[in-house]
Amino acid sequence: MRIPYDEIVVLLAAILRANGFSKDRAVPAAELFADASRDGVQSHGLNRFPGFVTMVCDGYVKPEATPTLVEQMGAVERWDGNLGPGVLNAHQSMDRATELAREHTIGVVGLRNTNHWMRGANYGWQAAEAGCLGICWTNTEPNMAPWGGDRHGVGNNPLVIAVPRSDGHVVLDMAMSQFAYGRLGNHARSGEPLPVAGGVDSSGEPTTDAAAILDGGRVLPMGYWKGSGLALMLDLIAALVSGGKTTRDIADLEPEHSVSQVFAAIDLSGVNQASFHEAVVERAVEFVLAAGEGEAAPRYPGQATLSTRRDSGKNGVYVADEVWQRIKDLAPDR
Amino acid sequence: MRIPYDEIVVLLAAILRANGFSKDRAVPAAELFADASRDGVQSHGLNRFPGFVTMVCDGYVKPEATPTLVEQMGAVERWDGNLGPGVLNAHQSMDRATELAREHTIGVVGLRNTNHWMRGANYGWQAAEAGCLGICWTNTEPNMAPWGGDRHGVGNNPLVIAVPRSDGHVVLDMAMSQFAYGRLGNHARSGEPLPVAGGVDSSGEPTTDAAAILDGGRVLPMGYWKGSGLALMLDLIAALVSGGKTTRDIADLEPEHSVSQVFAAIDLSGVNQASFHEAVVERAVEFVLAAGEGEAAPRYPGQATLSTRRDSGKNGVYVADEVWQRIKDLAPDR
Repeated sequence: MRIPYDEIVVLLAAILRANGFSKDRAVPAAELFADASRDGVQSHGLNRFPGFVTMVCDGYVKPEATPTLVEQMGAVERWDGNLGPGVLNAHQSMDRATELAREHTIGVVGLRNTNHWMRGANYGWQAAEAGCLGICWTNTEPNMAPWGGDRHGVGNNPLVIAVPRSDGHVVLDMAMSQFAYGRLGNHARSGEPLPVAGGVDSSGEPTTDAAAILDGGRVLPMGYWKGSGLALMLDLIAALVSGGKTTRDIADLEPEHSVSQVFAAIDLSGVNQASFHEAVVERAVEFVLAAGEGEAAPRYPGQATLSTRRDSGKNGVYVADEVWQRIKDLAPDR
Repeated sequence: MRIPYDEIVVLLAAILRANGFSKDRAVPAAELFADASRDGVQSHGLNRFPGFVTMVCDGYVKPEATPTLVEQMGAVERWDGNLGPGVLNAHQSMDRATELAREHTIGVVGLRNTNHWMRGANYGWQAAEAGCLGICWTNTEPNMAPWGGDRHGVGNNPLVIAVPRSDGHVVLDMAMSQFAYGRLGNHARSGEPLPVAGGVDSSGEPTTDAAAILDGGRVLPMGYWKGSGLALMLDLIAALVSGGKTTRDIADLEPEHSVSQVFAAIDLSGVNQASFHEAVVERAVEFVLAAGEGEAAPRYPGQATLSTRRDSGKNGVYVADEVWQRIKDLAPDR
């Protein structure tokens, strides 16, 4: 079904209010969930909202906890997320990174002891809207076998990189697994094969059968040894910069909480003319798009976002019927 | 054959001296080539040296040109490489990034108008030896079709990430293609199939046949759309931070020269105890290694480097016979 964005925010915020969020925190948190669905990322938007409320009810997410500054060290700051809501902690941290970037050209925030940030691209778009290049990533619980292994040993540690562009920012949001678990679930339900092998089945054979991957198999890192190696590096940097936990440490915390994240912003407005920036980005994007034709032609990262957002604005945000029902069931009596 | 490291450096330096390098530049440049072969990366070490000398002779690499500071902007600096030797320009830039990191915790150097840096991991090891986290990347000429395309539209833009570790630094060095062209050439010559599909053949079918990829086919980005997207982001950031050329601009420059690079160093010694650092890295690495057994068991990025380096020290650096002969043919009459 299609629901107007504002109606979603009102309902989500009411539910958060009933679960310990103050009003000035319930609305922005609700918006960050609604934004993900509005931009077409239901798996990390409304689909996750009921689970998020459960985490709040169970005390893993502290609605009113906000990040506290632990160390100020030049262009880098270390903050403790105090297990506050991941979406609000992440948003505040990218905001702080852009402030630091105004002063030092680059600003980096290491955030420890925080919670799942839901859709990472939200914070990339945020940096780009502020006129900055944005780079951020999070570690996760171990949910992927490193290349050569058959037991979970790395997280899928999503990485987001954003570059401002006037006709729609270029925003990459990619986990270190070849496919997100959400997408595997969709394919497992529909039976449609994955476009490329996304994991191995229970006998270790590469497969495009999502159900076989989820049922006794395991996901493959993107690029095999490459995604596996990059996942470890992102985990190490996040833990070292934030002073927080690695994927290994998070393994002991069930359900997943207290993750480590890095937010970097680069503000080049003092040195790059806007026209230089536009020309660089536009020409490079144009070159990528010109490298093929047809239905599966090249796209730039984030290309679909603005059209989906426009469609959501016009026709309402797509929400699966059962998800909307589950959310309505969480609503306080009015 | 196996050649002692010092003998290699002496010969390479003599050749560089005869091609316009002053003595105090010929030796470190020779060392950076020798280091790559010593560490097992022949493809970006001595194998490339004859081609490098040709670039010098043809005037694309200026032996005595050094980077000049273009902009100082807080923790970020922009340098022009003036088409100097890529290895020396890159080494100086990572050195400068670590200096900036001492002051601001993070330091970033954008380097434009430079040349191929050969083995990127050299600069990762360099940062780690200086006690810093290191992140650097380069753009390249367009040598890969973006996902969905059938014509070159992105570079394979190698990315290096290094984290210091007392028993051997953790250093990831990965191009955005699933396989380096050097490795494809090795497999094409030997006929041994690639371990996973590394490209498509001339009819567009994924294949593990390296010869078919090189002969009318094309390489695949690592992780398909993911490596394709990441390649574009790295290209954009390198050009925007350095004020230099994108992959598209480099397409017009035959042979490849005047590339753009980013060098970042993070110095956490002011805030992290060495024991904290060691524990974080050691425990995470241990967790990865414990996720599987057997011959193809998980390894951490850079794991093989130290043992190869020790073997090279003991038994000499491996150099293919024909490569050593080609290099000897370049030697000035003595």
